[in-house]
Amino acid sequence: MAKFVYFFGNGEADGRADMKNLLGGKGANLAEMTSIGLPVPPGFTITTEVCTEFYKNNSAYPAGLNDEVAANLKRVEQLMGRTFGDAVNPLLVSVRSGARASMPGMMDTVLNLGLNDTTVQGIIAQSGDERFAYDAYRRFVQMYSDVVMGMDKEALEHLLEQKKEEKGVHLDTDLTAADWKDLVAKFKARIREVLGQEFPEDPQEQLWGAIGAVFGSWMNQRAITYRKLNNIPADWGTAVNVQSMVFGNMGDDCATGVAFTRDPSTGDNYFYGEYLVNAQGEDVVAGIRTPQPINLHQKKEGDLPAMEEVLPECYQQLAGIRQILEKHYKDMQDIEFTIEKGKLYMLQTRNGKRTACAAIKIAVDMVKEGLIDEKAAILRVQPSQLDQLLHPSLDPKAPKKIIAKGLPASPGAAAGTAVFTADEAELLARNGQKVILVRIETSPEDIHGMHAAQGILTARGGMTSHAAVVARGMGKCCVAGCGDLKVDYASQSFTARHGVVIKKGDLITLDGSTGEVIMGEVATVPPQLTGDFATLMEWVDKYRKLKVRTNADTPNDSKVAREFGAEGIGLCRTEHMFFEADRIMAVREMILAEDLEGREKALAKILPMQKGDFIGIFREMKGLPVTIRLLDPPLHEFLPTEDKDIEALTKTLNVTTQQLKHKVEFLHEFNPMLGHRGCRLGLTYPEIYDMQVQAIMEAACELVKNEGFSIVPEIMIPLIATVSELKELKANAVAVCEEVMASYGVKLEYLIGTMIELPRAALTADEIATEAEFFSFGTNDLTQTTFGLSRDDAGKFLPFYVETNLLPEDPFVTLDQNGVGKLVKMACELGRSTRPEIKLGICGEHGGDPASVIFCHKVGLDYVSCSPFRVPIARLAAAHAVLAGN
Amino acid sequence: MAKFVYFFGNGEADGRADMKNLLGGKGANLAEMTSIGLPVPPGFTITTEVCTEFYKNNSAYPAGLNDEVAANLKRVEQLMGRTFGDAVNPLLVSVRSGARASMPGMMDTVLNLGLNDTTVQGIIAQSGDERFAYDAYRRFVQMYSDVVMGMDKEALEHLLEQKKEEKGVHLDTDLTAADWKDLVAKFKARIREVLGQEFPEDPQEQLWGAIGAVFGSWMNQRAITYRKLNNIPADWGTAVNVQSMVFGNMGDDCATGVAFTRDPSTGDNYFYGEYLVNAQGEDVVAGIRTPQPINLHQKKEGDLPAMEEVLPECYQQLAGIRQILEKHYKDMQDIEFTIEKGKLYMLQTRNGKRTACAAIKIAVDMVKEGLIDEKAAILRVQPSQLDQLLHPSLDPKAPKKIIAKGLPASPGAAAGTAVFTADEAELLARNGQKVILVRIETSPEDIHGMHAAQGILTARGGMTSHAAVVARGMGKCCVAGCGDLKVDYASQSFTARHGVVIKKGDLITLDGSTGEVIMGEVATVPPQLTGDFATLMEWVDKYRKLKVRTNADTPNDSKVAREFGAEGIGLCRTEHMFFEADRIMAVREMILAEDLEGREKALAKILPMQKGDFIGIFREMKGLPVTIRLLDPPLHEFLPTEDKDIEALTKTLNVTTQQLKHKVEFLHEFNPMLGHRGCRLGLTYPEIYDMQVQAIMEAACELVKNEGFSIVPEIMIPLIATVSELKELKANAVAVCEEVMASYGVKLEYLIGTMIELPRAALTADEIATEAEFFSFGTNDLTQTTFGLSRDDAGKFLPFYVETNLLPEDPFVTLDQNGVGKLVKMACELGRSTRPEIKLGICGEHGGDPASVIFCHKVGLDYVSCSPFRVPIARLAAAHAVLAGN
Repeated sequence: MAKFVYFFGNGEADGRADMKNLLGGKGANLAEMTSIGLPVPPGFTITTEVCTEFYKNNSAYPAGLNDEVAANLKRVEQLMGRTFGDAVNPLLVSVRSGARASMPGMMDTVLNLGLNDTTVQGIIAQSGDERFAYDAYRRFVQMYSDVVMGMDKEALEHLLEQKKEEKGVHLDTDLTAADWKDLVAKFKARIREVLGQEFPEDPQEQLWGAIGAVFGSWMNQRAITYRKLNNIPADWGTAVNVQSMVFGNMGDDCATGVAFTRDPSTGDNYFYGEYLVNAQGEDVVAGIRTPQPINLHQKKEGDLPAMEEVLPECYQQLAGIRQILEKHYKDMQDIEFTIEKGKLYMLQTRNGKRTACAAIKIAVDMVKEGLIDEKAAILRVQPSQLDQLLHPSLDPKAPKKIIAKGLPASPGAAAGTAVFTADEAELLARNGQKVILVRIETSPEDIHGMHAAQGILTARGGMTSHAAVVARGMGKCCVAGCGDLKVDYASQSFTARHGVVIKKGDLITLDGSTGEVIMGEVATVPPQLTGDFATLMEWVDKYRKLKVRTNADTPNDSKVAREFGAEGIGLCRTEHMFFEADRIMAVREMILAEDLEGREKALAKILPMQKGDFIGIFREMKGLPVTIRLLDPPLHEFLPTEDKDIEALTKTLNVTTQQLKHKVEFLHEFNPMLGHRGCRLGLTYPEIYDMQVQAIMEAACELVKNEGFSIVPEIMIPLIATVSELKELKANAVAVCEEVMASYGVKLEYLIGTMIELPRAALTADEIATEAEFFSFGTNDLTQTTFGLSRDDAGKFLPFYVETNLLPEDPFVTLDQNGVGKLVKMACELGRSTRPEIKLGICGEHGGDPASVIFCHKVGLDYVSCSPFRVPIARLAAAHAVLAGN
Repeated sequence: MAKFVYFFGNGEADGRADMKNLLGGKGANLAEMTSIGLPVPPGFTITTEVCTEFYKNNSAYPAGLNDEVAANLKRVEQLMGRTFGDAVNPLLVSVRSGARASMPGMMDTVLNLGLNDTTVQGIIAQSGDERFAYDAYRRFVQMYSDVVMGMDKEALEHLLEQKKEEKGVHLDTDLTAADWKDLVAKFKARIREVLGQEFPEDPQEQLWGAIGAVFGSWMNQRAITYRKLNNIPADWGTAVNVQSMVFGNMGDDCATGVAFTRDPSTGDNYFYGEYLVNAQGEDVVAGIRTPQPINLHQKKEGDLPAMEEVLPECYQQLAGIRQILEKHYKDMQDIEFTIEKGKLYMLQTRNGKRTACAAIKIAVDMVKEGLIDEKAAILRVQPSQLDQLLHPSLDPKAPKKIIAKGLPASPGAAAGTAVFTADEAELLARNGQKVILVRIETSPEDIHGMHAAQGILTARGGMTSHAAVVARGMGKCCVAGCGDLKVDYASQSFTARHGVVIKKGDLITLDGSTGEVIMGEVATVPPQLTGDFATLMEWVDKYRKLKVRTNADTPNDSKVAREFGAEGIGLCRTEHMFFEADRIMAVREMILAEDLEGREKALAKILPMQKGDFIGIFREMKGLPVTIRLLDPPLHEFLPTEDKDIEALTKTLNVTTQQLKHKVEFLHEFNPMLGHRGCRLGLTYPEIYDMQVQAIMEAACELVKNEGFSIVPEIMIPLIATVSELKELKANAVAVCEEVMASYGVKLEYLIGTMIELPRAALTADEIATEAEFFSFGTNDLTQTTFGLSRDDAGKFLPFYVETNLLPEDPFVTLDQNGVGKLVKMACELGRSTRPEIKLGICGEHGGDPASVIFCHKVGLDYVSCSPFRVPIARLAAAHAVLAGN
């Protein structure tokens, strides 16, 4: 190992910004700022490799570290003209941890290190301010004893409170130099008493104690847990930064502050920050005093004077540094600074966190400013961030009375009157009322109500519950699994926190991005898809290779998706159409028919309605490809299960309750997910698929003939496990297609393909591709079967799995590349080996997840398909896949 | 194409026995018999390639066929000294189809071809028997018009009946030459009337008509269906055999018969057959006259004279041929012969079908006789045949009153009194009564009753229903899905065919090999595992490479399996132990406990019982390896679902019905197969697995310490999807193991491994093998997840799939090699790539299926494990795998 310690100071630095792995983020940027001539208090960084060695060698420092630290400390002393531990002109330092990634849970900072009963005198002499010196001293004792020695903070705080009581004062600022001096002594005595050891007087002992504490905190429980949850390897280690102290609290020519080089909320190109006169950094954070704006641009009516007014020279210098930093880093920076007696020091710079909106504006502006190019701009916006933008959001200025909190299951915001049944939701919505559908859990029978509602609130179910999944698909706001709620269907009401009762008809508001349930109506603001957003998306479309389609079942969904940039429909589920109120009765009649004739009679009623749906969808998609999946769910999903619904059905269908119950019982399945569904229905009841294919082709032929459309329908057969299934069903479908085309005198192209959603289909994709003209990976079901994991039931253990890192993430959210992804890759290769021109896409929910989209790009799919509201996310992720060299 | 027609006759033949693909089975063996000097009437075979060409060329014969047929017919004429179509000395021929495999549904035979009003005179002259000649003529017209011309048989039969009525006689034999002659005319007139065409007089036209009919029948619907069901490719084609006629019905020095070179029922080395004097082959089959034994050995009190007595010279010649054929074919032969005026002719020979018992005896005897070697003997017995032998069977001599028929779900036979609940079964069995458990369907709660019963009868469910699977596992007789039954629990009775009512306590008998339900008790005979069986199995064990273990959950199962030759336990399911009456309450207490403490308290009650089980099993297995699977099913399977059971439980556990119902509801799963089970339980409730591991290790340590045993327990963790799961559970298990061993002061080897039963586990087997010391393929669940097919629900469509050949066979019976097998193979390779010494086995039901065992051998597993009663089948199949060069 070469070098343990990296120096920075006076325009020279051993490190650089790109050495984050070795120096940590903080250390690397301190070195960089020093190199480019910014005023950084000198100091040095002990590398992350030392940390790694430290743990490898049973908590021993590598040989030579001592000497290097001593040598570098000497350089700092020389630059500062002060000496560490000197009685007359002592050097004080800060010791801070700094890993590659910022990591909560680790030891953060010890300030004013080097103070003792001797050196404090030197500080008094230097500063001419005894109160300041003893205040600094007591702060050091408090901080050091807490983070290095493991002293209980409260014990010392208690002594401070006692002192204030004694003196009859309320604020720390009311205590005098003598009070602080007395407290330092009392603190040390109490430390001795509690820990049985002396507070170290020797500055060298203090320094090595603090260094050891930083390394030690790398392995504390909170840090370990954080790393486990965030997949950070333990051998990354942390660096230690030792830096000479500067003080923002030595008088009114002193200050401390934090700033962003642009507004992190809006992205506006203005310098944005806060500062406090005569204060230390922790005072800004602690919130005891209200920070002041740094400039006039920000200053609002009633604000205290801005730094621009109070310390104009320092402000101008800082504004210049802002320009230098942006030009240098080519990104918006988040900085910390301190002014000591009129002199500005930079303590930190890093890329600033920002809202989605700001991210886009900054990226687009920086291209215009010539700072970065389009590609860099695209990579500056995280696809997942867009989610915030694509849904209406609560007006941040409006007051909110939060009455419960659940899972933020589907983002966006919605307000409406609470209703407790899907029928009620539909009824009120039809009369123009905005409603929130409240259910214990939702089921497929609630679909029409979910469609009608502005938002969905459930008491049970996780992020992947029926309510959550369907709501996300619809782009509807949803708060799920809200354990605070006690829903009582009988009284059509629910009880929330603090006994608040919401009855049917009461107004509530949901925030699907936070999981909050709010009493009354809170104003919302709609998503903004023009301006910078549109500009960025134009660039995105220029670079991406993957097409992005949408999962849409209705003309309205299709329209929304088109607006979001969808290039076709990758999954049109026909069963949602079956649930519509006007046709569910015909569907039930079909299911309950005793023979083919009865089924065909019922199907004849559904045919014109399905055809109408397809005409609507084809029209909206204006010739873009549309993949229609034939009926998938098991038939029992369409039957009522509650006694009163069964009763109602018997009347309409003229059968006995007994007969109906028998049928329901007969159709019952132990594992419906693995049951009589998908192509298994198509094979046992060919008339159902025949009707659907007929509806698709009649719709297409009619548009082609009468409206001059160009349409290439893609007919998708679900749940194929063997090529024999597809062969038979394809033959049936082709026969129907040819017949319909002949009757219309129209000839059009159409494709017949399959979902790849069972492991067996993926494993035998070479065989299946002999028949299939396209594959669409149904990764929801493929994940369920590959893991042997029911999405409906996983709520009892999947959260535990993700929490304890048994799974790095929920495999229903982000595609499991090692397992499910291996099948997808295999299927792509096998499929192409048989049919090189086969069209490959994905229509599971993963199609809208950025990491999964990047995977899809890598394995060479032609398109991804996702819910309308995630289309822009997928487009951006697809561009990232190309530009990040994935 | 070289040669269309293969001649045989007079000791010379163009074909050989090994040319079955070209000449069909019948043609190849006629050629072979001719070559080895047996008296075969001369003839020729038109090859299967002609058939294939015929269909390729739009039903046209290949050029040159005509000439070849003519040339070969000439050779036959020369040998026979007769001429086809000649008025004075006509040659008559038979025309028969003959494919590679015997195929029902195809045209079979036309006899006496060549007869017309002219040639019949020649036959009269040759035979000196006008009645014989016209009888032959009318038979020909009947057969030919039926199979070649498509005439309705009944129409001619009707004329025959009329004639007999006219003449006032009952038997055909009572009709005279004149009657037959008249009938020939009437037949032809009726044919003309119905079909509008003449019966062909020209023998050449007759011949080509018959040849065309044979080829045509290859593509008739019945043949196509049969081929589809049996996976016979259409392009195999059929051959046509044209052979000169010989007559067994020309007088009392004529006869016809069929024989087996050894007894096909017992395998005894005696010539076994039947014959009829003065008869044609069809008379033996038709059963109008009772056939007579061929020799004195067979002849029983009251039998007619044997052929040995009546035609002693012919018999001696035939007995000689028997020896020649066995020496030549080295297998038991099934032969047909005809004696025409004291001269013996051989018409067919083929390997004879035989019972399992006979197959074994013949194979072992032939080794002793030096005819074949051990390897050949092993290959002579089909593994699946053994099933017949391994269960008690009904005494074939006993009379039976069959009252219903269901699926032969688990072979064997059993008699007992009917009971309708599992508790009742257990109660009566404990009192020494033999019972048959009758249920609509069984569930895991019935396990104790199934254990207690002699046999199980269910009204619903297929070959893979719970009842069928569990019964096969237990080696218990089971008739499942018996739709004839109406079970009424209320009155504790069922109604069977013809309204027969069986009440609780009535005696019934089940035949699990036929699916028959019989009133009263029928005597049974136990399986015979000694003698020839034992000899054969000794040879089997010498050649096989795969080890064979058993799936056994109790000491008793283990004992049975040992007797059947099991070399260890591949799957010991611990949950069956949980269902035992004495512990289910503690299990329920554990499930219902609100906290860890409550669960641990309940588990402490179960621990000594589980330990006792393991001690029993380890003792039975005498140091052989035992793989114990930790708890697998979801917890709700252990809870009662019916109101009265819930009620009873509340009393025992002192909880309210409400609480209990809530818990049951909370534990409910939509897809339990994919739910909270297997290692997911072990991770969320580590105390359960800890208890089980403790019980296993304490049992092992105790035996090792006190009884000087050698035991290497194999602890198997089910339902692993990711290596992270296994890593955590293995660490837990190792900790418990070490602790137990320390407390006993015993050090023993143990292995920790996993089931591979989820596609993801197979796909990531390289990762999983970093932790797993063995893999056991759970191909039941792997088939369910790979196909996305619930075994419990597949009954509604899987039979349809198998019937229509969408699947070549039930994938739960025979491993799906293309899909599931691909995963197994992949997992073996990946697992070995990480851990070359990893132990690989299979414990799904496929472990007892011969085709699947052969697959397991091919992919290089170390062992298969199956239910005790299938152990010998697996052993034999494993030897086949080696010897058949698989």
